[in-house]
Amino acid sequence: MRDVAIIGAGMIPFGRRDEDTLMDMLAYASMKALDDVGLGDKSVDAVYVANMGGGMLQHQSAIASSLVDRLSLMPAAAETIENGPASGASAVKTGLLAVASGYYNYVLVVGGEKMREVTGWRATDVVATMTHPQAEYPYGITLPGMAGMFTRLYMEKYGVTREQLLAVSLKNQEMGTLNPYAHVEMALDRAGIFDLPEAVVNNPVSADPLHLYDLCPVSDGAAAVVICPLEMAKAGKGGQKSSEHANSKTPVLIAGFGQATDTQTLQERDDPTDLKAVTLAAQHAFEMAKLKPADIDVAELHDAFTILEIAESEHVGFFKKGEGGKAAVAGKTRLGGQIPINLSGGLKARGHPVGATGVAQVVDIVWQLRHELPKTRQVQKARHGLTVNFGGFGNNVLAFVLKRVEL
Amino acid sequence: MRDVAIIGAGMIPFGRRDEDTLMDMLAYASMKALDDVGLGDKSVDAVYVANMGGGMLQHQSAIASSLVDRLSLMPAAAETIENGPASGASAVKTGLLAVASGYYNYVLVVGGEKMREVTGWRATDVVATMTHPQAEYPYGITLPGMAGMFTRLYMEKYGVTREQLLAVSLKNQEMGTLNPYAHVEMALDRAGIFDLPEAVVNNPVSADPLHLYDLCPVSDGAAAVVICPLEMAKAGKGGQKSSEHANSKTPVLIAGFGQATDTQTLQERDDPTDLKAVTLAAQHAFEMAKLKPADIDVAELHDAFTILEIAESEHVGFFKKGEGGKAAVAGKTRLGGQIPINLSGGLKARGHPVGATGVAQVVDIVWQLRHELPKTRQVQKARHGLTVNFGGFGNNVLAFVLKRVEL
Repeated sequence: MRDVAIIGAGMIPFGRRDEDTLMDMLAYASMKALDDVGLGDKSVDAVYVANMGGGMLQHQSAIASSLVDRLSLMPAAAETIENGPASGASAVKTGLLAVASGYYNYVLVVGGEKMREVTGWRATDVVATMTHPQAEYPYGITLPGMAGMFTRLYMEKYGVTREQLLAVSLKNQEMGTLNPYAHVEMALDRAGIFDLPEAVVNNPVSADPLHLYDLCPVSDGAAAVVICPLEMAKAGKGGQKSSEHANSKTPVLIAGFGQATDTQTLQERDDPTDLKAVTLAAQHAFEMAKLKPADIDVAELHDAFTILEIAESEHVGFFKKGEGGKAAVAGKTRLGGQIPINLSGGLKARGHPVGATGVAQVVDIVWQLRHELPKTRQVQKARHGLTVNFGGFGNNVLAFVLKRVEL
Repeated sequence: MRDVAIIGAGMIPFGRRDEDTLMDMLAYASMKALDDVGLGDKSVDAVYVANMGGGMLQHQSAIASSLVDRLSLMPAAAETIENGPASGASAVKTGLLAVASGYYNYVLVVGGEKMREVTGWRATDVVATMTHPQAEYPYGITLPGMAGMFTRLYMEKYGVTREQLLAVSLKNQEMGTLNPYAHVEMALDRAGIFDLPEAVVNNPVSADPLHLYDLCPVSDGAAAVVICPLEMAKAGKGGQKSSEHANSKTPVLIAGFGQATDTQTLQERDDPTDLKAVTLAAQHAFEMAKLKPADIDVAELHDAFTILEIAESEHVGFFKKGEGGKAAVAGKTRLGGQIPINLSGGLKARGHPVGATGVAQVVDIVWQLRHELPKTRQVQKARHGLTVNFGGFGNNVLAFVLKRVEL
């Protein structure tokens, strides 16, 4: 495998973007990533688009081909990659392997989703289409419902408390106020949340024991990266068919990648609290990168529900089982702590436009490793980052270890 | 790039499969391909599923993860690849590059679509979701409508006749009667078709100048292949994490791959009869394989409409522009002719379950190159095959050159 680096990254603000179509958002994010690297459009060999709901929500298919036309990247190859909430990481992975193979040099990976054009239960229903078609969906289970049951089991087995869940929520919503790309820009009032009568009013139960502020919002958004062989990234110029790229930014190596699947239904797992696919995906990514959890300076974990940030922080090896919640309360996952997690605000506050999320996680880590963020959310001298993108309810998980390339 | 070979191939009969779900069909085809190679299920590193309409037609997403569970292939990686009618070839390409990169050894690629659960115009509408979301879809254009306009232009420019179109239809429906996997098993009565009053009765206009028998049917179906590094295919045994595979069948090398995109709308092309993406995709595939059109012994072209078989046979270089239709009438594209095309019956008779088609084309060529077919449709001593999978209306086209590996 050739080493592959990320040379461009871009994102548009997540949230409610009624004025933009899905194609608009994909195009805007793509242009930001292409502009970031100063790459002429005729240099793009292939485009991978991460999207889950285009057919169901926009009644549109073959959006990757449409995007290539919109961006005038013809005759670049194009495919759409779908893997539920992990579609974004799956598209980055597909680009990684395509460049690593030697067949392509410059690849654009963009993820996006427009979810706000349906309201209330319909968005929840679209997300629920990733559940088991016979054993789950017909019975009305939703992703928040699964997360509620998972949380209850995790509380019983490891003593996780509501306070620990809220510590994640408070941190991530606070970070959202510092991230101009975040959907949720409202800090939670710690006193208000912990004052019980207020909590009942302000933080109602969504899927017991999860409350409103334990869940990510339904968002529109898109994010994109440009990747190429590390050697070309270092040289700062294109291969035989490419013009030079500006390369003013520090390249970020995709040092490790791991992926694993698990049973689709929770009840078929020996221990439903054991997220085997998270453990395996992270292990494989660390092995490939020849790094260990303690080497990571900053992480973006898939906190669609607060419990997931806690559980993933344990399963990837940052904390022992049962210690992740305590670590959150103790501030160990905040900026300046042992391992800062979701300084972007995470899915909780940046939002979770399904196809965009896995790409957005990578974009935020790229910004961290380039030392480009304002100091309120920049990990000083960050060298190594981790992303975890969680598909289904942990039945298809992808992890990347990213590494700053010192030139 | 490592050389990559196809070591297993399987298909289920296309047609109306009311008794099967989409997941059933994907699982059946996968098992046929896995059985074909005698590969233990724990040896599969990754699964790529080609599907376009799962969200729109089955209200289901993340089907690749679901399939991995259904087949007990965990923790194998999984993604769904979508590229309209070229989704199948795009999934094969994704698998090819993933194995070529060195990251994976054994990869299962399966394509499937269940289209018959909607009736009449709804299937046409689902396919029309691949048209331009502003410039085409809202005006009611459909794929048959585009094909009709394209046919008229092609007739005017190159003198293609209705007789030439019918020659393709007659050949492919006749081949369908010889292929147990084909949806359409009815041979057309040559006399009846060319007898004008009968033709009006039996072959009504669909999208002038295209008639009913110029169009592929709406089908259910699935097809699958298993690929691995050529060296492992030759050795007949797995790598470090694999059990031995039986390898009783002749491996087929993916010798060449090419892909190109074009404008999404026909009217933006300098010459709407010029299928630039077909020409480029085939050229790239031939260059990579170090072969030329005259070296090809058998081809599967994307005849969703009869005009496309004629146009593609010219654009890939089998015939000069304007000669493809005459060649069809002269029998040059029949078994025993200069270049036998669509001996499977093609999309016209095998059917066109969208996500399955590109994989099915590859499966049929694999069978040809292994010399496994009954002599009524086997090209004797076939060594090289070509597939062309045509996405949108020629705005994303993929071609493979496949080569029999003599052991």
